[in-house]
Formats: sequence, C-alpha cells, structure tokens
Amino acid sequence: MKYFEDIAVGQALTYPGRHEVTAAEIIRIAAEWDPQPFHLDEEAARLSIFGGLVASSVHLFAITSKLCHSDPEKWATVSALGMREIRSHAPARPGDRLEVRSICLDKRPSASRPGLGVVEFEVQLLNQKGEVLYAYVSAVLLRMRGQGD
Amino acid sequence: MKYFEDIAVGQALTYPGRHEVTAAEIIRIAAEWDPQPFHLDEEAARLSIFGGLVASSVHLFAITSKLCHSDPEKWATVSALGMREIRSHAPARPGDRLEVRSICLDKRPSASRPGLGVVEFEVQLLNQKGEVLYAYVSAVLLRMRGQGD
Repeated sequence: MKYFEDIAVGQALTYPGRHEVTAAEIIRIAAEWDPQPFHLDEEAARLSIFGGLVASSVHLFAITSKLCHSDPEKWATVSALGMREIRSHAPARPGDRLEVRSICLDKRPSASRPGLGVVEFEVQLLNQKGEVLYAYVSAVLLRMRGQGD
Repeated sequence: MKYFEDIAVGQALTYPGRHEVTAAEIIRIAAEWDPQPFHLDEEAARLSIFGGLVASSVHLFAITSKLCHSDPEKWATVSALGMREIRSHAPARPGDRLEVRSICLDKRPSASRPGLGVVEFEVQLLNQKGEVLYAYVSAVLLRMRGQGD
C-alpha cells in the first residue's frame, strides 16, 4: 500500500494498461451518449474539421478512468475530491493505442483532517507517439502512513 | 439558430431530456470503465460509505452529455473550449430521474477571432428533487449573428 508520504511533487506515475481505440467503439459510445456526426459516421467525420472519426470526450474520460485502474500499486485513497482544467489537446482516432500518466503537481496535509493529505495530479491520456491527447487535474485525499488500515 | 447575442449572463437554460438511472446500467458502465465495488456490486455497495450502488463519474458525465443533446434549440457553436471545476456533490442512485440545466456565468467577445464569442456555462445534473448531483463549468465558442451560416 502506498501513502501520502510515498509521492513527491514532480513525480510521474505510469500505468501498465493500454487501450486500443476502434471505430466500432467510438461509434458505440457516441450513439449512446454523444451523438455528433464526427463521432458516429465515417463519411460525415471525413467532411468535418477532424477529417475522420474521433472519440467523444465521454469516451476519452472513460478510457482514462479504465487505464487508471490498471495501476498495480494500491494507494490509501480515502476519496476523490474533484477535477479541474479538463483539456482536449488532440483527437483520438481509430487505431490509436492509449495509455495514462499522472504527474504530482502538489501535496499538502489536510487542514481539517489530521492523518490525511491532499494530493493533486495532472492525469494525462497519451497516444502511441507520446502525445498528450486529453488531460485534467485531479485532487485526491490520501491517508498518511500508520493512520488507519 | 441561437447565437452569442441570444444568451445573457445569469440566464438558465433547461433541457427536455430525462434519464432514469438503473442498477443494471450503473453496473454495465462500471464493469467496462470504472470497476469499483460501490459501482459494481449491490452488497459491497451497501457496506461502503455510500450505503448502496452509486453511478460512477464516467456514467454521470455520459448522462450529462446525453441530456445536453436533448436541447431543441440549435446553437451556432464553433467549438467546445474545455471544462473546469468538475464537482460531484451527491451520488446518483438506481431510480433517480436526472435532468440537466445550464447557467450562463460569463460571456465575452473572442479577443483573437472577430465575429465569435466565448460563453461559459455551469452545467448541472439534477435529480428528481432538484438537487444538483454533479456540475462543471464548460466554455464554448459561439458565432455572433450574421457571421457565417
């Protein structure tokens, strides 16, 4: 188990999971949750500003969530506190093989809850070329070592 | 078609769509994208801090996206610019009937692109009691009236 003390500001965490984006999955997610032409139809997407099918933001967030669960380290997380500054930098397209990386931006002891600390990460979704496609800042509440199980 | 000029700061937009959350859907989304016990298993969820199954944040974002598409008004949107300040205020549970509301927080002409304007909305996901469960701030680029089709 990893605790508040086990992460340093500036440290990058990598995760072993990979997710290959397919046209079928882009269309399936979009049809249910974000039915826009450049997510749903190859021909309409080709004529859009994207020049081809691209994954919806629902899909990117879902893939990021899934890949974060591929962390073999177990963290003493009490709660997620929120997310901010979500940015789509570049589209994800069929055939892209995605992975996640987290960079610790800040850490501080909780002002109100002794034994706990707040850690902020930039969570990044990258393609097979190492380009950051999508990113956000996530704050989590972690236990300090020896503070509960 | 509605343009940059057609929204005022403080104005609330409502949408006709409703989405009823089911246990089966909570489990289906979580199994694919966010496999945590309080999203996946009734008994484990009952013993968690939530006291029962709750929808994952991937699910809440997906439902919000879907309900935003129920807007009968067509807006002259050029692009989404990003999201910030995502907050989960309260969980969504099976049987909840959700809707969305957007409140215009700010609007300004684009500094770099004549004929376009930036509008910021707080997008809120509410349950059948009118409680805000989940919210974020979304910035969009809209055309001004008479600037292109």
